Amino acid sequence: MVLPFDDAYFMKKALEEANLAFEKGEVPIGAVIVTQDRIIARAHNLTEQLNDVTAHAEMQAITSAANFLGGKYLNNCVLYVTLEPCQMCAGALYWSQISKIVFAAKDPKRGFKAMGAKLHPKTEVLGGLLENEASVLLKRFFIQKRNLN
Amino acid sequence: MVLPFDDAYFMKKALEEANLAFEKGEVPIGAVIVTQDRIIARAHNLTEQLNDVTAHAEMQAITSAANFLGGKYLNNCVLYVTLEPCQMCAGALYWSQISKIVFAAKDPKRGFKAMGAKLHPKTEVLGGLLENEASVLLKRFFIQKRNLN
Repeated sequence: MVLPFDDAYFMKKALEEANLAFEKGEVPIGAVIVTQDRIIARAHNLTEQLNDVTAHAEMQAITSAANFLGGKYLNNCVLYVTLEPCQMCAGALYWSQISKIVFAAKDPKRGFKAMGAKLHPKTEVLGGLLENEASVLLKRFFIQKRNLN
Repeated sequence: MVLPFDDAYFMKKALEEANLAFEKGEVPIGAVIVTQDRIIARAHNLTEQLNDVTAHAEMQAITSAANFLGGKYLNNCVLYVTLEPCQMCAGALYWSQISKIVFAAKDPKRGFKAMGAKLHPKTEVLGGLLENEASVLLKRFFIQKRNLN
């Protein structure tokens, strides 16, 4: 059976957001939040444009999803994000009590796992989905940036 | 010599912000960010009013200070906050490369130290300043909340 909406489908939507960040000269990371097969928040990294270290894709998506739902808890939601969340985003996800996090590329230096931050015990985590697509985009960004400087 | 602006002076300003949160029915936590003896950001917890787990006093203060400075790094700034930052706020402070963090009450359950989150190696930390004032306000809030339910 082919599921119309599976994890890969939504991760591709997060990758579309990452591409929007890339086009703006932002580190290309994108995220979507889904509940009941419906995307309720889309966001991409805007730290440069907004001059704000808190403007990670996940943070904006959490705020946006809570705004859509009219409540601050994301118990029945899944976050799809193209890079493993950092400790700030993991901390926000902890408070949100989100059901599930699916990330693409791993971040062995600044990811929440390496940094020691904790998710909520209720939160399920799946890493490495479409990892290659997300990593290639990130590598292309940093190579381009080096060549411009 | 009496310094006109010392750590206690600015922590009292953060406590004023915490009082504003209290009056709004928010968990009473306040923060200010200071550079060269000047307050460039004031904020208090607004998670209930905004329905947003990311609306901690520190997060708003970081965004506000960066906006004031026109840059996202807070290298020459000090954060005064009435409760030990959580891992989300510690993560944001990590990215901001803030010079110094002064907090009042300790949070042995959800503070960044207990949760395992890390600050930037450049960031100096001082905990426990006016701890009693901050703790009393928090206790009063939770007692009042219990009595109303």
